Amino acid sequence: MINSIVNHVTKHIELSESEIEEFCGLLEEVTAQKKTLLIQPNDIVTKEYYVVNGCLKAYYLDESGNKHILQFAIEDWWISDFEAFFKGEPANLYIEAIEDSVLLSINKNVLDELYLRIPKFERFFRLKTEGAFVSLRARILDSLQKTNKERYLKFCELYPQIEKRVTNYHIANYLGIKPESLSRIRKEINRS
Amino acid sequence: MINSIVNHVTKHIELSESEIEEFCGLLEEVTAQKKTLLIQPNDIVTKEYYVVNGCLKAYYLDESGNKHILQFAIEDWWISDFEAFFKGEPANLYIEAIEDSVLLSINKNVLDELYLRIPKFERFFRLKTEGAFVSLRARILDSLQKTNKERYLKFCELYPQIEKRVTNYHIANYLGIKPESLSRIRKEINRS
Repeated sequence: MINSIVNHVTKHIELSESEIEEFCGLLEEVTAQKKTLLIQPNDIVTKEYYVVNGCLKAYYLDESGNKHILQFAIEDWWISDFEAFFKGEPANLYIEAIEDSVLLSINKNVLDELYLRIPKFERFFRLKTEGAFVSLRARILDSLQKTNKERYLKFCELYPQIEKRVTNYHIANYLGIKPESLSRIRKEINRS
Repeated sequence: MINSIVNHVTKHIELSESEIEEFCGLLEEVTAQKKTLLIQPNDIVTKEYYVVNGCLKAYYLDESGNKHILQFAIEDWWISDFEAFFKGEPANLYIEAIEDSVLLSINKNVLDELYLRIPKFERFFRLKTEGAFVSLRARILDSLQKTNKERYLKFCELYPQIEKRVTNYHIANYLGIKPESLSRIRKEINRS
């Protein structure tokens, strides 16, 4: 379990054995059965989660009870209500396990202390955040200029592993289209 | 001019006089008259720009010649084709001055060396990127769950200075709605 996060981190920064040991000592193992809520609106969010195994979603529930999926996370991804986590504000989102999942969590205060002791971790999280930032820019650009069909095909191309593991209803929620529209698009693709 | 970026940076990190001097020595002043293109598709993007004065837009031009505005930037903001800048890939976007603008640019290689010499800058840019990342998450969430009218009102609330300085056409492009629809929304708001 620890191996996967160590490989993940050392893709971006070099760490000594003692630095790896120190980092791993700060992580907590979390197991979340399918449908477990790790975060709910108004929670104070002190943790972000690295996915060792499993699949989760981050979503917003609007006043009419409609679900809007902001993010999926599978193996090797991080998930949290990041706005609440970064700013120390109450959560707006739900984080829910779609499959039985095993996670490693790190606490915000612990991470802030780690940045001071080993600034290379500041680099690691800067690089991860830059990557996440440009993915969101691409998602916004696609929502401005691509058709729903093109956006669905891009989703399948970018996240083939997620497309296999979540329902059509989830993907429609993520793309902001009606499930019926997504079914039509999928039929059209299968016909062609 | 240097004062504004020093104030901007020292809101997030403490710097000694010599660190400020070193940082400022790495910046280049850039003046861009209205309609100047700082970046065009296929350019190798080596710089990001801090806005001292003025207003700029980052946009994508699709195959049919439609403009999709991904970002505006006014005083105290950073702008670039960030995907190309971070990944060292050719640009997909145009960066264009909407007003006569004065900018400070920093080169990617120079910045990477600065991170090694003064890791506090790694912190500064981590914090700025986290802020930008959560703003984009909020923008995506709004596009999934808010009406066009609500999204326009949110834009006016978040960016009153930008709303005053750019055309309706620009704002419609940014929101991904037709200029006619935005005109209708504005009339509706003015009537109520």
